[in-house]
Amino acid sequence: MSAAGGEAAAPAETVTFELLAADGQARRGCVTTARGTFQTPVFMPVGTRGAVIHLDARDYDELGLEVVLANTYHLQARPGTDVVESLGGLHRFTGWDGHFLTDSGGFQIMSLGRRPGGANQPGRRSGGAGEGASHDAKSKVDDDGVTFRSTYDGTRMRMTPEDAVDIQRRLGADIQMALDVCPELPSPPREVRAAAERTHLWAARAAAAMSAARRNHSAGGQALFGICQGGADPELRRRSAETIAGIGFDGYGIGGLSVGESRAEMGPALAAATGVLPADRPRYLMGVGDPARIVDAIAAGVDMFDCVLPSRLGRHGTALTPHGRINIRNKRYAQDATPLDDRPADADGRARPGARFSRGYLRHLMSVNEPTAGRILTLHNIAFLADLVGDARAAIEAGQFAAFRERVNAVWS
Amino acid sequence: MSAAGGEAAAPAETVTFELLAADGQARRGCVTTARGTFQTPVFMPVGTRGAVIHLDARDYDELGLEVVLANTYHLQARPGTDVVESLGGLHRFTGWDGHFLTDSGGFQIMSLGRRPGGANQPGRRSGGAGEGASHDAKSKVDDDGVTFRSTYDGTRMRMTPEDAVDIQRRLGADIQMALDVCPELPSPPREVRAAAERTHLWAARAAAAMSAARRNHSAGGQALFGICQGGADPELRRRSAETIAGIGFDGYGIGGLSVGESRAEMGPALAAATGVLPADRPRYLMGVGDPARIVDAIAAGVDMFDCVLPSRLGRHGTALTPHGRINIRNKRYAQDATPLDDRPADADGRARPGARFSRGYLRHLMSVNEPTAGRILTLHNIAFLADLVGDARAAIEAGQFAAFRERVNAVWS
Repeated sequence: MSAAGGEAAAPAETVTFELLAADGQARRGCVTTARGTFQTPVFMPVGTRGAVIHLDARDYDELGLEVVLANTYHLQARPGTDVVESLGGLHRFTGWDGHFLTDSGGFQIMSLGRRPGGANQPGRRSGGAGEGASHDAKSKVDDDGVTFRSTYDGTRMRMTPEDAVDIQRRLGADIQMALDVCPELPSPPREVRAAAERTHLWAARAAAAMSAARRNHSAGGQALFGICQGGADPELRRRSAETIAGIGFDGYGIGGLSVGESRAEMGPALAAATGVLPADRPRYLMGVGDPARIVDAIAAGVDMFDCVLPSRLGRHGTALTPHGRINIRNKRYAQDATPLDDRPADADGRARPGARFSRGYLRHLMSVNEPTAGRILTLHNIAFLADLVGDARAAIEAGQFAAFRERVNAVWS
Repeated sequence: MSAAGGEAAAPAETVTFELLAADGQARRGCVTTARGTFQTPVFMPVGTRGAVIHLDARDYDELGLEVVLANTYHLQARPGTDVVESLGGLHRFTGWDGHFLTDSGGFQIMSLGRRPGGANQPGRRSGGAGEGASHDAKSKVDDDGVTFRSTYDGTRMRMTPEDAVDIQRRLGADIQMALDVCPELPSPPREVRAAAERTHLWAARAAAAMSAARRNHSAGGQALFGICQGGADPELRRRSAETIAGIGFDGYGIGGLSVGESRAEMGPALAAATGVLPADRPRYLMGVGDPARIVDAIAAGVDMFDCVLPSRLGRHGTALTPHGRINIRNKRYAQDATPLDDRPADADGRARPGARFSRGYLRHLMSVNEPTAGRILTLHNIAFLADLVGDARAAIEAGQFAAFRERVNAVWS
């Protein structure tokens, strides 16, 4: 399926995507990697520094998670790639044996480095500005790579596409992401185009670096996903997806969306990308955790999602519910004895994390800054999004996805 | 067993203490309340504001906890007694059906009110200075009660022994503590004596208030423990314990120790109290969580312990281990792949909370201020103290308590 030969990655050996059901463009699939399988559509919570904030591996198991993100940028800075590698890689490091997908670090380098404070990014993509930025300075991108200052101590650092592959290899990711250039939106068309072109050059170099690692047997079964860019311009987006697909990867990230553009603008760009990405590879829309955008993207044929949204909202007191967002700090919940989550146990018989605690109790804990509250709301919000994609899987299997999407949009759009 | 008639509490109806084994003065027992039973010696973690910091009811179950403390002072201020009561009392409020013991609030009123900042207290007793004090002002004790300013908003408040019973009744405690006057040590003998005398007057009033609540069937099976004072003076301590025992309570707190005096000073005072407290009632040494002091006190015939120590140490990076305290932030742990807790599963087959995570991982999480680290260390430290008292129970049953105490002291004294 790879249009390019020679240095290209050998995707079919590393990842398979089995299409179990389809409903329109929406796909219900199963991804198999060297580690095992996961069901799609999937929502992947973000463990920026090696842990989803407030949670640990025991929680991932209890939530039934199959994939968790880890942030290359943050981990290479603290505790450092050497340390994670010497402690056995991400799985032994964190005590979890599910799938880890690592981002390339490029998004953090650029969002943290955009301006002092790094605050001009929505920051919903994993571990960007707002997930611990403290020492920001301008990043500088050239054709060869990116130069930046560490947000931790200001050290001047350099990362090339080859470096990103090597760092993620040593971190022990199950799925690596190629280093990309991600402009915020809106940006001048010229900049969006230049970012896409540089992303393509870097993607080919990342693929070559991974091929080399595979030839010398140092890749340990790791998968590499390419990332298409192109902003919200459908034509540019389509060409970028074609170019990345032509290089040949185990799966495909769709980057540079949900970075400032409206949901209406995102749709055509997304459809342009999924329309040309190979049908037999998983597709991953990066940084999207809003229920309405998730179902839009599933309808367009996307399989994988990540976002810091459920944990960030949760620890600040916002809970996702079947009726929309609620702010648990609101005085109306002070004497509310109803549980945060009054739905029955999930399909696997697991009690939902918000089922045991009343809104009044959580309102109290949040208002006196007890970390227990942020933890419970984080667990709840992640379970909520896990349920959402689980319900989407069931709806696709049943051929009822359009009706499901309508129900979600009635609440979330 | 009560020496006083008339207004005294009716302990035998509310709590029974079954002595299962003894080894010297050390007791292995079982306490039965209206809620159920718990095994002694017991360690009771502190949930200051309705949750042990970082934990929730699901964790209490997983740790196998039988009793958790809740702080009357903090809960009556936030969310307020009315709110806890309207949400069904502590058990429905927190989602936990184990035993809740509430302190009377007196320790907080006095330690928080002692001086601006309230920092002259060791603060190891539950939820005192350092567990959230922010707005301190002098407390004023008179014969009738205590006047203080709320640490939350500076409101002037008043609490009498009768108020303390009523608030704890409405909170829905399983075990209430009578309001006492707790001087720090060292204090002038005159002050220690006056505090004890006032404590006795208040204890009789608390017992009368509880008797009245029982007569009008509003006490819901709650137990009331009296508290003896007397500082580190064995004779004063003995007389205080006799006086409190003479009033007649369901169990007995030993207050005003571990508040500044040395371990050597604590011993004789403790022995003076346990020597005269009724053998058929549980005895509770308040605010002690140091392993050496716990085994000292068990040797003297104490059954119950509480302390903020395991959670406070844990969330700041200190772990209790069979070889003593370690500070997980230390650089020596940076690449340490050994688990925090390398002991096998506990007697009930439960994996210990520190078994899954390496010291290197926890060191990393703690050094980047991830709350996950404080949570895991809190769970670990509480499990450690639960194991300590569990081992003490087994040692008493086996008639090996002296050897057990020596092993503990070899590490902890």
